[in-house]
Amino acid sequence: MIASQILVSEVGPRDGLQSIASIMPTAAKLEWIRAEAAAGVREIEVGSFVPAALLPQLADTDELVRAARTIPGLTVAVLVPNLRGAQAAISAGAHKITLPLSVSETHSLRNLRRTHAEVIADARSIAQAIRALPRDEQPHFEGSLSTAFGCTIEGPIADAQISRLAEALMGAGCDEVGLSDTTGYADPASVRRLVRLVRGVVGAEALTGVHLHNTRGLGLANALAALEEGITTLDSSMGGLGGCPFAPGASGNLVTEDLCFMLAAMGIDTGIDLNALLDLRKLIAQALPGEVLYGFTAAAGLPLGFHDTGSAA
Amino acid sequence: MIASQILVSEVGPRDGLQSIASIMPTAAKLEWIRAEAAAGVREIEVGSFVPAALLPQLADTDELVRAARTIPGLTVAVLVPNLRGAQAAISAGAHKITLPLSVSETHSLRNLRRTHAEVIADARSIAQAIRALPRDEQPHFEGSLSTAFGCTIEGPIADAQISRLAEALMGAGCDEVGLSDTTGYADPASVRRLVRLVRGVVGAEALTGVHLHNTRGLGLANALAALEEGITTLDSSMGGLGGCPFAPGASGNLVTEDLCFMLAAMGIDTGIDLNALLDLRKLIAQALPGEVLYGFTAAAGLPLGFHDTGSAA
Repeated sequence: MIASQILVSEVGPRDGLQSIASIMPTAAKLEWIRAEAAAGVREIEVGSFVPAALLPQLADTDELVRAARTIPGLTVAVLVPNLRGAQAAISAGAHKITLPLSVSETHSLRNLRRTHAEVIADARSIAQAIRALPRDEQPHFEGSLSTAFGCTIEGPIADAQISRLAEALMGAGCDEVGLSDTTGYADPASVRRLVRLVRGVVGAEALTGVHLHNTRGLGLANALAALEEGITTLDSSMGGLGGCPFAPGASGNLVTEDLCFMLAAMGIDTGIDLNALLDLRKLIAQALPGEVLYGFTAAAGLPLGFHDTGSAA
Repeated sequence: MIASQILVSEVGPRDGLQSIASIMPTAAKLEWIRAEAAAGVREIEVGSFVPAALLPQLADTDELVRAARTIPGLTVAVLVPNLRGAQAAISAGAHKITLPLSVSETHSLRNLRRTHAEVIADARSIAQAIRALPRDEQPHFEGSLSTAFGCTIEGPIADAQISRLAEALMGAGCDEVGLSDTTGYADPASVRRLVRLVRGVVGAEALTGVHLHNTRGLGLANALAALEEGITTLDSSMGGLGGCPFAPGASGNLVTEDLCFMLAAMGIDTGIDLNALLDLRKLIAQALPGEVLYGFTAAAGLPLGFHDTGSAA
């Protein structure tokens, strides 16, 4: 059931850095991105095209996209809150653009200041802007269903609403939708249930990735459930940096190091060199003095006799 | 595949307290045990019958067993290193006795100072001592296959050795064997593989429980894999206290609070009141000033609109 190859998509430079007070210098971000790509990570979300006044931590996203595009084999991903952000992402040359849509409309209004209808309209305009480009310059366009596993303001979200919005995003021209546990409410059973629900609406090929948090410690168990459902892309963040600044207490992405250890131990190919990843952690810790880095594998080390199945490309 | 009812077996008063420098006063231990039983936990490992000179933290095990026996509905479990410990456990009236056997013989020699043959001989003598008791006074006797997922001294352990020792423990008169990830080397694939391997030798009814650690952050993912294999008893520790003092860097049991949150979220009945469990954490923190308590659910709180499926008996 579990795919033999899994794409680990690093979201730390975006989801991680937007959630902490420290502002990492652009040079350090680029060193991180280059080192992680050299360790074999093939997709990195380098930033978000939001106004610098809102998230000064990500004000250098344009520069990062342009620099990261020169790294061979790396898919450069960005988050955009709206059409204007998408236009900036296209102009910088991002390979992948993700537009979040909070399935909780209350969360959508507070987070993106947009109704569902406005976000869907933006998705349509973004898809049109992408299709107007030459084919080989068109970025991949994902609509991410955030707060899919529950909202800190609304609580549980009705299945029918999730299905309807997944369908609406695909209808607006997204290449794919993603499921995002923005609030850390997911559990292995709900991960399985929602993956099946959404795939039932959009097809398996249009839901290949999930974005999980480790808010209540269930991150890797939820990842395992997603893998067993055939999901092939997992978002994670070095040191578990991040979470959602609009979901109180909901900090902590999946820890890239621990996720990659789990996958390697299970014999799943990620192309990632675990030791290089653990070395990279030191670089990030140095660039973010005082910030907490999560993760257990770095402290415990790799098991005696452990043979890393991954390897840098 | 997953059983609708799961037994969460608390090992904190034994595995947790033996691994830390602080010595918890007997009165505080009893308060912990009583409060956790009142929260609906039905089995607690209250201590280990080892010489007080070796583990002064557990010197009050005899007193704890005698007191805990008076709590209605609670299975009082203890660890014993040898026949002498088992005799003390029987005399105190323990309901369940676990004898660890390190499948790594090097670890066995360093940890228990016993060869495999000596531990198996002890298992036989303990089984005989138990069978000499009136039937309704006979404790349940488990042989625990420790370092089953790999050893910090020997590395990986051959399947044939694990099978042979599981068979030998059952042949010596154990009621059951357990699989223990003493060193935190397990991953979801190896959990599935070893559960199937050992059940193939001793039968499914003679392997119902696993003892997992969270050393590299995979604890709950490994627990999920065990549940999916039909395992019905999971060991865990309040605040993740514990680990193995003979496995360097290998601290951290499954966190009882996070495990119970995962099970409740999945709709699995444990009979445990989650809010009472989270309250209990404060009591333990007060009794162990300066010790680190792990766990994410306590910090994040329960999700909005979360309905606890468990309930105290």
